[in-house]
Amino acid sequence: MPRPDRMKLGTFVYTYGFHPASWMHPGSDVGAANSFAHMLNVARLSEAAKFDFMFMADSPAAAVGDPEALARQPNKMNRFEPLTLISALAVATERLGLVATASTSYYEPYNLARIFASIDHLSGGRACWNVVTSDHDETGYNFNRRGLDPHAVRYARAREFVDVCFGLWDSFDDDALLLDRERGIYHDPRKLRALDHVGEHFQVRGPLNIASTPQGRPVIAQAGGSEAGIALAAETAEIVFGLASDIGRSRVFYATLKARMAAFGRDPDGLKVMPGVVVNVGRTRAEARAKVDFMLERLHPDVGRLMLSEFLEADLRGVPLDAPLPEDRLPAAPKGSRALFEELTAFVRSGRTVGELIRLYAEKHTGNGITGTAADVADVMEEWFETRAADGFILMLPTLPASLQDFTELVVPELRRRGLFRDEYEGMTLRENLGVPRPRGRAG
Amino acid sequence: MPRPDRMKLGTFVYTYGFHPASWMHPGSDVGAANSFAHMLNVARLSEAAKFDFMFMADSPAAAVGDPEALARQPNKMNRFEPLTLISALAVATERLGLVATASTSYYEPYNLARIFASIDHLSGGRACWNVVTSDHDETGYNFNRRGLDPHAVRYARAREFVDVCFGLWDSFDDDALLLDRERGIYHDPRKLRALDHVGEHFQVRGPLNIASTPQGRPVIAQAGGSEAGIALAAETAEIVFGLASDIGRSRVFYATLKARMAAFGRDPDGLKVMPGVVVNVGRTRAEARAKVDFMLERLHPDVGRLMLSEFLEADLRGVPLDAPLPEDRLPAAPKGSRALFEELTAFVRSGRTVGELIRLYAEKHTGNGITGTAADVADVMEEWFETRAADGFILMLPTLPASLQDFTELVVPELRRRGLFRDEYEGMTLRENLGVPRPRGRAG
Repeated sequence: MPRPDRMKLGTFVYTYGFHPASWMHPGSDVGAANSFAHMLNVARLSEAAKFDFMFMADSPAAAVGDPEALARQPNKMNRFEPLTLISALAVATERLGLVATASTSYYEPYNLARIFASIDHLSGGRACWNVVTSDHDETGYNFNRRGLDPHAVRYARAREFVDVCFGLWDSFDDDALLLDRERGIYHDPRKLRALDHVGEHFQVRGPLNIASTPQGRPVIAQAGGSEAGIALAAETAEIVFGLASDIGRSRVFYATLKARMAAFGRDPDGLKVMPGVVVNVGRTRAEARAKVDFMLERLHPDVGRLMLSEFLEADLRGVPLDAPLPEDRLPAAPKGSRALFEELTAFVRSGRTVGELIRLYAEKHTGNGITGTAADVADVMEEWFETRAADGFILMLPTLPASLQDFTELVVPELRRRGLFRDEYEGMTLRENLGVPRPRGRAG
Repeated sequence: MPRPDRMKLGTFVYTYGFHPASWMHPGSDVGAANSFAHMLNVARLSEAAKFDFMFMADSPAAAVGDPEALARQPNKMNRFEPLTLISALAVATERLGLVATASTSYYEPYNLARIFASIDHLSGGRACWNVVTSDHDETGYNFNRRGLDPHAVRYARAREFVDVCFGLWDSFDDDALLLDRERGIYHDPRKLRALDHVGEHFQVRGPLNIASTPQGRPVIAQAGGSEAGIALAAETAEIVFGLASDIGRSRVFYATLKARMAAFGRDPDGLKVMPGVVVNVGRTRAEARAKVDFMLERLHPDVGRLMLSEFLEADLRGVPLDAPLPEDRLPAAPKGSRALFEELTAFVRSGRTVGELIRLYAEKHTGNGITGTAADVADVMEEWFETRAADGFILMLPTLPASLQDFTELVVPELRRRGLFRDEYEGMTLRENLGVPRPRGRAG
């Protein structure tokens, strides 16, 4: 049975692209990390292609590790702060959804609720908050802590944080503003209320000092694949993001997550499962493959070693490239993708060198996903979409703007020919375009 | 001896204007509180007149009090969040400085330092942070506290907070970015450093994950008139803002503050004393007076009573308008202006009614300052400027955009005729226009 709607698409943004050597691609401004013009270009390309949104990844810390390797990988060292960036993009774009990542571990709900409400007004209803709890130790060191709080504490705080924000966004009823100059009454005081929240992590009185926004509440995105993450998403999220590896597992994840929504009285269509996918597309398969190789050649071994260190949570500095990795450097369990972890483990046990392992990891991490012609890419996306492994995709484009231009020029027309992607925006707000309901402001 | 430079001017922004009935003025969009077009109009009027900056007042709480009265006074109930607003204005203006208020009591320094660094990049060097500690109980209730921390604690935290931000803004040296694609080296790792701050209120490792900004650090504004506030300003501020009441006291304040800077090795010209001043200007004195009366007529007695309650820190609900205020409702000491407090106290003791008292307070608070022709206004401003009571002014315009249009059309040309105000911006950044030095990034 064909899907009733079309797929949703978003552009995932690290400044220069998802590939760790992306800043070296000749097609971008080398100073893009501090250039609004670069970000606006990415936004306008996404908007011209009628994408649902642009998604700003974030971490409130510079990456940690070998300083020489970090000096070769700017995406995590020098970046715009995402809330300010999407505020600026809000008034320079018209239809594109604007997603910013912000951590429930290091913000206060009153400040963040105000910020997103303000962006929703600035953008005419295109704000989306990617809720994260932050999962890197280095972030804690910037916020008065010796490291991360335990996973369960972070998720309990996140759940309460989101709840407080929901309450604050509902401070003003949708029809609270009377704007009656004749009688001198601006708002109906019966349609504005305090929150008086008293919980384990937060005490917040409210009300929020900004009126109800075009979307009622910003769209909520989340990425969690843990049990706590799935629970939070089933209850509160409208976009769920994850790294796609295996279509079978993704179908199970999709079905599980949508089933869990019923317990919260939610329609499964109110949440869009959008795996991240790395796309390298060319006019021919050889051209696509050449693009992958072009970027792999630019990846310095120190950067590859640093990336692998992060994935394995092991310090690999000084480990020789031309010898196998001692097996005791492998962790017992993966932090990220289990499938990738198992593949790397088998590779190590087969006696390959660290240099080969880095190349495998870098390719899996940055060059895998889908590589081929527009038809190849569309085939995979169509299969995932039609078999309910995904409602759409967050595109992890290796380089920006080059890979985004490739995608919009080659793949988008192919998706349209197949009836899989929109020709024009359906609505004015991100909720309207995603097809997720707007929360109704309370009656007075 | 004439002053060597020109005066500095900034527009103080509550949405609809400084007057509590400003939203009822027919010259503005009644929906301005959630309208970027309104804010952009205020910014563009200020920029066309070559003002130094636009100053966003703020409090992270809705006002508290009689709900019926608050429903008649939207400025403190429904407003843009200022950091997001100036981010949007940054890309829609070219030369105007953009000042946002943010509280050291309720933010984390790592987040706020990132936000202002990002805005400084977005704006090409026009960001300014108005540092406040927040002095209303209602803010504390939104941030896990039963009320405010004590004054001394708030100022100690503020001092440390600013210091952490300075350290974070200096994470990257100005010449740290190499952007060398040939060698694959983005930045010089010797020119990026952690902060490793461990203090009484904060532990922040750093470095900041954004490169050195056009201004090195955003401009710092402050308003404190307390001893702790003066100490903080003398050491760290570049703009000092306050409500002007008396030229004699202001000269003393000016001289005291500038003298205190020497202890920190600072040039007195590196800080601009800019009192707030309420201006009602007309083509004739009668026209100016009529503008004051027009707004006073629109002030509902409940709003007047609420304002007076805040000033006196007394609950005046239910106190009859046609009888004198019982003297036991007067506090022992003023929270705000001592001169105004003494005037009100004498008025109460002379047996006037609460209604008369409200009108007096409303006029002093909103209609005093300078009322008259362009020459009258320029005379006062010139005297303050030439006798070193002020380096410039923050204009508390009763209505926006109407009073701002009046000022730019009538007063600005008069100030220019007298050689007191610029014809064109001197530089591209706010620091260049203010004439305050740019901190030098450390050498490697």
